[in-house]
Amino acid sequence: MTEEPLALTRYKFILEYDGGPFAGWQRQADALSVQEALERAAEAIDGAPVVMWGAGRTDAGVHALGQVAHADFTKALPPGKMRDAMNAHLRPHPIAVLSAEVVNADFNARFDARERRYLYRMIDRRPHLTVSRGRIWRIPQKLDAELMHSAAQVLVGLHDFSTFRDAQCQAKSPVKTLDEISVARVGDEVHVRCVAQSFLHRQVRSIVGSLAEVGRGKQDVSYIAKILAEARREACGPVAPPDGLYLTDVIY
Amino acid sequence: MTEEPLALTRYKFILEYDGGPFAGWQRQADALSVQEALERAAEAIDGAPVVMWGAGRTDAGVHALGQVAHADFTKALPPGKMRDAMNAHLRPHPIAVLSAEVVNADFNARFDARERRYLYRMIDRRPHLTVSRGRIWRIPQKLDAELMHSAAQVLVGLHDFSTFRDAQCQAKSPVKTLDEISVARVGDEVHVRCVAQSFLHRQVRSIVGSLAEVGRGKQDVSYIAKILAEARREACGPVAPPDGLYLTDVIY
Repeated sequence: MTEEPLALTRYKFILEYDGGPFAGWQRQADALSVQEALERAAEAIDGAPVVMWGAGRTDAGVHALGQVAHADFTKALPPGKMRDAMNAHLRPHPIAVLSAEVVNADFNARFDARERRYLYRMIDRRPHLTVSRGRIWRIPQKLDAELMHSAAQVLVGLHDFSTFRDAQCQAKSPVKTLDEISVARVGDEVHVRCVAQSFLHRQVRSIVGSLAEVGRGKQDVSYIAKILAEARREACGPVAPPDGLYLTDVIY
Repeated sequence: MTEEPLALTRYKFILEYDGGPFAGWQRQADALSVQEALERAAEAIDGAPVVMWGAGRTDAGVHALGQVAHADFTKALPPGKMRDAMNAHLRPHPIAVLSAEVVNADFNARFDARERRYLYRMIDRRPHLTVSRGRIWRIPQKLDAELMHSAAQVLVGLHDFSTFRDAQCQAKSPVKTLDEISVARVGDEVHVRCVAQSFLHRQVRSIVGSLAEVGRGKQDVSYIAKILAEARREACGPVAPPDGLYLTDVIY
């Protein structure tokens, strides 16, 4: 008697999380990751180990408003039931499944993504943060958002981003295309938005940290063009903290 | 030799805080309040006990973006130095002095306030909260913000607000004037804004909890008028949790 191949149901999940308590997206031997918390919830539902594949491997402390992941289940629950079951098992972790959807077995959250969008929130004020602690990067000096926006535009397009690439980055090449970057004041905050098919490790935080040097007047508007052209990590400004970074959308 | 009367300098402080870790504004024998944390910081600066007088006695868990307090110091620091010194002593508490100002000795944060403004943030979604946990009230059913706004308008003006007044309320009379109330959808959230010279204990949370019954369809649009007219606490809907409530402004 031959065994029938197991029929698996592939789900696409849209995820929101507070990155603060986690060691980042990816499974770690010694600390709880977002991936592991999700896989535990999925295994509790399915009764068998489930692997979660994420679109973006967010770093420790980085948040998500619209991370996407896929996973195969032996059980086939209706999507709304799957979302609610995942959320019931995820609590009290600050990770929520916003939606679950049944997708074709060839859908891949990581490799099919055409576009990833990040938001970086900054606030320029002297007093420490209270209600938004861990959610925004506070800079004590006033920021010139328009100047930051101008300085950033040189990054759009195909470039060698070695300056803005962490030493730990596992990407084969430092050459990437940045589709869009914008800097704008939104109320008391300054928001940086970046769009690309994919990003190098710590690329957004490296860009934002360097832009902050321009915004607070430590460097002039040509600084970003200059350090981009140097194409070496040592030229980068201080890397911005994870607190202000949000993976907002993944487009397929 | 007669003692010279001690020259005191009165400061007005604008304050922001996360109400989550505190037992409310007012000093308590057995738990840390916002007032006590501020008074400890002030005493560390002044070397003598300092009393902080707040404009609004926010409940446990209620946040402030623009609470106002006054206090008398024997030391006269320039306002910017006073703000920074208070903040240095307040850390790591999630309480920040946004501004300090020297005011006349007859300024009273509580009794001179002409208007207090509150914001209540709600979100209608099934998944539990992550990045905004403790900052918004989550309601699993869809809310009809326009209907809530219509229902609320009957509260504007001079009324006996006994229905919306906590049993613990120490105000002499339940008769108050509500200057404005508005309910509006703001992105994924529903915001309720209330303006009055003063509020009864838990008045905003009682109103919001009752409005939520209308918003999610458990009660019809005339419900608020009906329970207001009853003028008895038992008629009130479930009181909304403190998480979503912010004292945003005090006007003098």
